[in-house]
Amino acid sequence: MRYGSAVPTTRPSKRDDLLRLATDRASVDGLEGLTIGRLAADAGMSKSGVAGLFGSKADLQVATVRAAAARFDDEVVAAVTEEPGVARLRAIVHRWLEHVADAYSGGCVFIAAATDIDGHPGPARDVLAEIERAWVATLAAEAKLAIRLGELPRRTDPDQLAFELFGLLMAANFWNQLFDDPGGLDRARLAADRLLDGGES
Amino acid sequence: MRYGSAVPTTRPSKRDDLLRLATDRASVDGLEGLTIGRLAADAGMSKSGVAGLFGSKADLQVATVRAAAARFDDEVVAAVTEEPGVARLRAIVHRWLEHVADAYSGGCVFIAAATDIDGHPGPARDVLAEIERAWVATLAAEAKLAIRLGELPRRTDPDQLAFELFGLLMAANFWNQLFDDPGGLDRARLAADRLLDGGES
Repeated sequence: MRYGSAVPTTRPSKRDDLLRLATDRASVDGLEGLTIGRLAADAGMSKSGVAGLFGSKADLQVATVRAAAARFDDEVVAAVTEEPGVARLRAIVHRWLEHVADAYSGGCVFIAAATDIDGHPGPARDVLAEIERAWVATLAAEAKLAIRLGELPRRTDPDQLAFELFGLLMAANFWNQLFDDPGGLDRARLAADRLLDGGES
Repeated sequence: MRYGSAVPTTRPSKRDDLLRLATDRASVDGLEGLTIGRLAADAGMSKSGVAGLFGSKADLQVATVRAAAARFDDEVVAAVTEEPGVARLRAIVHRWLEHVADAYSGGCVFIAAATDIDGHPGPARDVLAEIERAWVATLAAEAKLAIRLGELPRRTDPDQLAFELFGLLMAANFWNQLFDDPGGLDRARLAADRLLDGGES
């Protein structure tokens, strides 16, 4: 498991500890399975203690999605040091695949959360959709820059490329989680590299 | 919604009716959310009536996955009349995308089920993994035939192609379900056609 390079100088708060447990639980059970009672049991705390920190189940779901997004930014996006353009986009995709494989017990917490919550309108679904849209836009913006830099063919559609990279990641997570086959990560890396080596998109 | 071309000559059994409700429910809530009590409420039946037809929750989950697979075979695989090879593979992928978009309230029931159940060992997970492995193998076998027929480049890796097609389908379902954006279906079709027109894989 990777926790980024920064060594925390102060002990994380109880709330941070609980959110780490909550994101891990959500990666296995989705967001609908994440309740105040379940988290209290996981943490060996009272329900009222957990409710005092998070409020309602909906508030806990939102806080959990935001915590996962903050960790993702730290460990994937902010951890990449490559030059903007294709090198950076490739490094992001590779780190993303590592993150999906290693960060949580149940694989990608966003995929687990999305599949679970997409049929349930509410604040958690809204926040998750917003985070995922922003993430796809980040990939597309990096691709657009790579096109302007002449590192990807001019005919490349950056939104299409972001969509295809996203699909590779989802399939890798599926292979890893349902088939117990980490070979999907290699397949995703291979296909992503082909797309980023100037294959059409 | 498409129910295949065959018009049933006898009324489906109560059990079939319930399984249709159950698969739809599972597309929204996943398999873990599918309980005897929930299904009884959806159907306006008593819990004991539903339990009498299905037994335990685990039995209901397995029956639901098998019912979804049978419907998928009818409406996607068996409905394709194209010649074996690339034409058939392309037709399967196109039908698969239609099925994902239209068949259930909550999108692809297999993706919903897999994401929900992959962290929960048991008979439903085993059956689902077996069905999905068989499906990926079907795609790969069709791709292999297309290579032998000279319709795809000889360097094509059929398992890699099946993986990539699967990822496109997953992304299309994600766009449709979380982003409420059916444009992902067009993106998936575009990318799949490119792969099947002899783009590398």
